[in-house]
Amino acid sequence: MVYNLEQDHALRARAQTAFPNGVYGHQNSALLSPEHPQFFSRAEGCRLWDVDGNEYIDFMCGYGTNLLGYRHPKVDEAARRQQGVIDCATGPSPLMVELAETFNELVAHADWTLFAKNGTDATTICIMTARAQTGKNTILVADGAYHGASPWCTPAPGGVAPGDRQHQLTYEYNNVESLTAAVAEAGDDLAAIVVSPFKHDVFVDQEWPTAEFAAAARALCDQKDAALVLDDVRCALRFTMGATWETLDVLPDLCAMSKSVANGYALAVVTGNDKFRHGASQIYTTGSFWFAGVSFAASLATIAAVAEEGAIEAMKVAGDLLRDGLDQQARSYGFQLRQTGPVQMPLMLMEDDPNWEKNIFFCSQAAQHGVYLHPWHNMFVCAAHTESDIRAALERTDAAFAALKKKFG
Amino acid sequence: MVYNLEQDHALRARAQTAFPNGVYGHQNSALLSPEHPQFFSRAEGCRLWDVDGNEYIDFMCGYGTNLLGYRHPKVDEAARRQQGVIDCATGPSPLMVELAETFNELVAHADWTLFAKNGTDATTICIMTARAQTGKNTILVADGAYHGASPWCTPAPGGVAPGDRQHQLTYEYNNVESLTAAVAEAGDDLAAIVVSPFKHDVFVDQEWPTAEFAAAARALCDQKDAALVLDDVRCALRFTMGATWETLDVLPDLCAMSKSVANGYALAVVTGNDKFRHGASQIYTTGSFWFAGVSFAASLATIAAVAEEGAIEAMKVAGDLLRDGLDQQARSYGFQLRQTGPVQMPLMLMEDDPNWEKNIFFCSQAAQHGVYLHPWHNMFVCAAHTESDIRAALERTDAAFAALKKKFG
Repeated sequence: MVYNLEQDHALRARAQTAFPNGVYGHQNSALLSPEHPQFFSRAEGCRLWDVDGNEYIDFMCGYGTNLLGYRHPKVDEAARRQQGVIDCATGPSPLMVELAETFNELVAHADWTLFAKNGTDATTICIMTARAQTGKNTILVADGAYHGASPWCTPAPGGVAPGDRQHQLTYEYNNVESLTAAVAEAGDDLAAIVVSPFKHDVFVDQEWPTAEFAAAARALCDQKDAALVLDDVRCALRFTMGATWETLDVLPDLCAMSKSVANGYALAVVTGNDKFRHGASQIYTTGSFWFAGVSFAASLATIAAVAEEGAIEAMKVAGDLLRDGLDQQARSYGFQLRQTGPVQMPLMLMEDDPNWEKNIFFCSQAAQHGVYLHPWHNMFVCAAHTESDIRAALERTDAAFAALKKKFG
Repeated sequence: MVYNLEQDHALRARAQTAFPNGVYGHQNSALLSPEHPQFFSRAEGCRLWDVDGNEYIDFMCGYGTNLLGYRHPKVDEAARRQQGVIDCATGPSPLMVELAETFNELVAHADWTLFAKNGTDATTICIMTARAQTGKNTILVADGAYHGASPWCTPAPGGVAPGDRQHQLTYEYNNVESLTAAVAEAGDDLAAIVVSPFKHDVFVDQEWPTAEFAAAARALCDQKDAALVLDDVRCALRFTMGATWETLDVLPDLCAMSKSVANGYALAVVTGNDKFRHGASQIYTTGSFWFAGVSFAASLATIAAVAEEGAIEAMKVAGDLLRDGLDQQARSYGFQLRQTGPVQMPLMLMEDDPNWEKNIFFCSQAAQHGVYLHPWHNMFVCAAHTESDIRAALERTDAAFAALKKKFG
C-alpha cells in the first residue's frame, strides 16, 4: 500500500487559514516531517489511525495523556456513567472530595489537593501558593525546562511582557553549585525552587537527577523557608503512584500533576503539605469547568486501573524492550543512538546528528511504516504497549533504519 | 418535608481537610448561607438535585456553562459518539478544523480561531496576542471587572507578584472620560483595551454599555493601534451567535469565549481578525487537552441546537417572566428589588440592603423551597427554563418572600 496523506494535507491547508498559522502549540507539526500526519480519526490502546486510514503504533501517547491505552474500557465506562448523571454544574459532585482524599492518601507529602484543567494551571497554582505562603516573590526554574504556556513560563518570547518574568532566576538542572548560586542570588526573596522530576527538555539528552541534586534542592528550600515545587505534570503515575521524587526519597512541598491522571480526560492536580495550606487558601484560582464530575470519575478509575493492571511495571517492560530493540537495530545498520532518561519516557537522538536531520528522516520513515515516533521530544510508552506491539513496532522500524542507511550511508 | 442538608454538611467537613480550605474558587459557598448546598448528585434540564435528594430549579446554570439545559440529549450524544472513537490523542481530529471554521463563519470579526480549556486561557491568549502584534505592553481593564484567575487578573491579592500587574491600568466601565484618560496615561505603550460585554461585576448593579462607550473603545483602539479585546467568556451565545458587542455594531479585534460554548464540556475559544493574525502566530500557547475531540463535538452540537431550538429567544422569554414575577412578588410583600442588566443574566439586589443581609436570607429561604438563586453574583437563565418552570420557581419564591417579610418586616 502506498503511504497516502491526502486527507491530512487537505486538512492542514484548511487549518492554515482557520487558525492563525495551522495547528499550534505542542501539536504543531511544523518541525516534524510532512510525512507525520497531524489529524487522526480513531484511537485504541496504543494505536492511532489517521484521517487517511493509516495505522500507527503510537509512541507519543497524546503527549503523555494516554497512560493505560486510548479508550480504556473501565475509564471510559466510569466517565460515561458520570456523564449520564451530572458533569459540570452549579456545584461539584461528591467525587471531587473522594478524589482529593485519594490523592492525599496516595501522595506522600499531600495534606490537601486542588484540581484544575491544564498542567499550566497546576504549576501556576504552585508558584502562587508559594508566594502567598512565604510573602516572597523570587522563583527559581531550570534553564530550558518547560513548566507550561502562561506568560510566566511559556518558552517563546511572543506576547510576554517584562513584568511576567521579573521575579525569576534560573539554574542549571542537576548542578548543585549552580542551584546554590541562584539561591544566593535570590537572597531574602526566595519563594520557591521549581524542579522537573528529571530533565526532559526538548532537543537535548534527558537526565535523571542525582541524589545529591535532589537532596540539595530540598535542603536549600528548608534553609530559606521556600517551597520545593515538583512539576510532575508530564511524569505523574508513570514511575510511582505518588510524586515522582518519592522514588528518590525527597518530598516536595507542592506538586503539579496532569496529563495522565485521568487517562486523557482534562484534569490537573496540585498536592501540598500543611506547611503551605494557608498560602493555598489565600489565592483565588478557579475555572468554569474545574469541578466537573466526568474527569473526577475518570481519574478515580484510572488510579484503580494503574494498580490493578500493574501499569507502571508494564510501561517499564515495554520501554526496556523498545530501547534495547532500537539500540540493536541501529547498531546493525551502523548507527549509534543516544537513548536517555527513563525507558517509560524515551528520548532517542542520534550521534553525529547536530540538526536532527537524520532523526527527522528516520521518524518520517517510521511513520510511513506505521510507527509514530518523535525526533526531538521525549516520547511516552503506555501500559497498553504489549510485548507483541513492541515487536511489531520494531519490525516496522527496521525498514526505517534501512532507508536511513540508504540515504545517510 | 423538612429541608435536610446532612450529607452536604458531612461532605463540607471532609472538603475542609481534603482541600486547603473547603471548596474553592467560584464554587466556594462560604459567602452564601449554610442553607445553600455545595454538592450535587444529579442534573437535568434546568434542575439540580443535591446529595441529600433536594430538588432545585437552578438559576446559576453551572455559572453559565449550562446554556441549553443540563445533559442536553443532542449535545451529550455527540460527545458520547466522539468519545467512542477518539478524544485526546497525539493529534487532533478533523472536528477541530470544522469547529474553527464554524466560529470564523459565525463571529463577524473572526478570521481565525484558537481553542483552549479555561476562560482564563482565552483572555490570557488575547492579551498575549495584542502584545505580540503591537510590540507594546500596557493593557487597560475596567475597575472591578473579572477577567479570570491568573496572576495578571485574579481578583484576590494572594500569590500575585508585583510584576504580574506591572503593565496594567484601569478605567471606569461605561465612562468615556475615564477610558480616554487611561488611554492617555498609557501613552505610546497601549497594547489593548479589555472590555466586558456589559458590567457584570459581583455585588453591584449590572450595567449595559452605552453606544457611546462602545464606540469610544473601538475608536481609541484604532487611533492607538491597539487591540479591542472583548471578554465574552460569560456571555457568548446568550445574546447572539457571534461576539456580544455585535448587538451594538461594534466589532472587537479579539474575543474570548468559554462557559456556554460547548454546553458544559470544557472549551474556551479565542477569535481574532487578520490584523492580529501574525501576533497570534507568534505566541506559544498550548495545553495537554486543548485538542481533544469530545469538546469540539459537543460545541458543534451546541451551536446547532442554539439555532434549531431558538435558545437565545427562549432565554429572553424566561428571563423576562422571572424578572417581572420577582418584581411583582417583592412589591406585594413591600420590598423593592434592583434587577439590573439583561434578563438572560439576572442580578437581583434589594433596596436598603447594604450588606446583602436581606438578600442572603431571601436566597437561603428560596433554596429551602427548591430554587437556587445567588444573592450577589449574576445568575443565568438557560434555554431549558420553560414558562412552567419559571411559574413553579415563582411559587417557591413566594414562600421565601413571606419568610423575608416575617424577619425583616
